[in-house]
Amino acid sequence: VTFAASHTGQWAIDSVSPVIGETLAPGSRLSVSEGAADLAADSIWTLRGVTSNTRYSNRTEVDRLTAVQEGLGRPQATLAALIPIRKSAAWWALAQDERRAIFEEQSRHIGIGLDYLPGVARRLHHSRELGEPFDFLTWFEYAPEHRDQFEEMVRRLRQTREWDYVEREVDIRLSRA
Amino acid sequence: VTFAASHTGQWAIDSVSPVIGETLAPGSRLSVSEGAADLAADSIWTLRGVTSNTRYSNRTEVDRLTAVQEGLGRPQATLAALIPIRKSAAWWALAQDERRAIFEEQSRHIGIGLDYLPGVARRLHHSRELGEPFDFLTWFEYAPEHRDQFEEMVRRLRQTREWDYVEREVDIRLSRA
Repeated sequence: VTFAASHTGQWAIDSVSPVIGETLAPGSRLSVSEGAADLAADSIWTLRGVTSNTRYSNRTEVDRLTAVQEGLGRPQATLAALIPIRKSAAWWALAQDERRAIFEEQSRHIGIGLDYLPGVARRLHHSRELGEPFDFLTWFEYAPEHRDQFEEMVRRLRQTREWDYVEREVDIRLSRA
Repeated sequence: VTFAASHTGQWAIDSVSPVIGETLAPGSRLSVSEGAADLAADSIWTLRGVTSNTRYSNRTEVDRLTAVQEGLGRPQATLAALIPIRKSAAWWALAQDERRAIFEEQSRHIGIGLDYLPGVARRLHHSRELGEPFDFLTWFEYAPEHRDQFEEMVRRLRQTREWDYVEREVDIRLSRA
């Protein structure tokens, strides 16, 4: 999946805000291309990621998520956010059980996400193995009536212990007619 | 890291054997390039992978591995194996706790590997996120005196429950002067 900021694309970029570390240049429109993208010559920046298997969720959590989450592209979901994140070397040096404990037992990352389903739909893209500047690109879609819920979810996640390991984060907000 | 079979390269290809599913074409030499490789025009096949964080090992296991394993490039390690593997969709649909249980509690993948350290050095490369034909490329280096140990290790791993989820595997053996 390729996210490209330029002057064309399905989504209008409403804001590009640095949260931690260096920001990204603003653009007027964002295109989201599934599969191999024909890279637009006029793109301001391009971020690539791939959907993959779950890394931390256990069976109970997967079943709970699957039961309530909704897909992308709902007509009423006219607002979106793209939040690219890079975690520190210290995070990646942790063993699997240590990362899981911080991610869920201490930070309730899955649990917090569940609190905002099905209103806030989400798709995670992995970028670290692609040699990209971010490790993850998370894409959210929601209706205007769930805007406050989305803000609350993001605020809660940023207060967790897991976020101590985030060394770069940019928050891009988008909308479509 | 790029593994390219051609008529040049540090390693002589002694054999290319299909274990499960389609094999790879034989070549006479294999080159191993770290970082972005200049793709040789005459390569017979090219496989790419990236080293990454651990996916299943807990802290105790990481510490045990780190204490005894040795790095690549030991002068006496004149034999090598490259074993590309692809796992089934059923494997990737499992939750993290289910994959971990099959990987270690049922199959003792980490435990079996530990039994052959430090003789058999190993480096795992992830390919799945790169859209490659295999999910993993595992590279092994060992001295001729550890050849039988290596064969035993491979035989034991292939008898595990984890291997029920392997849908393609090729076994490439190499040597250098």
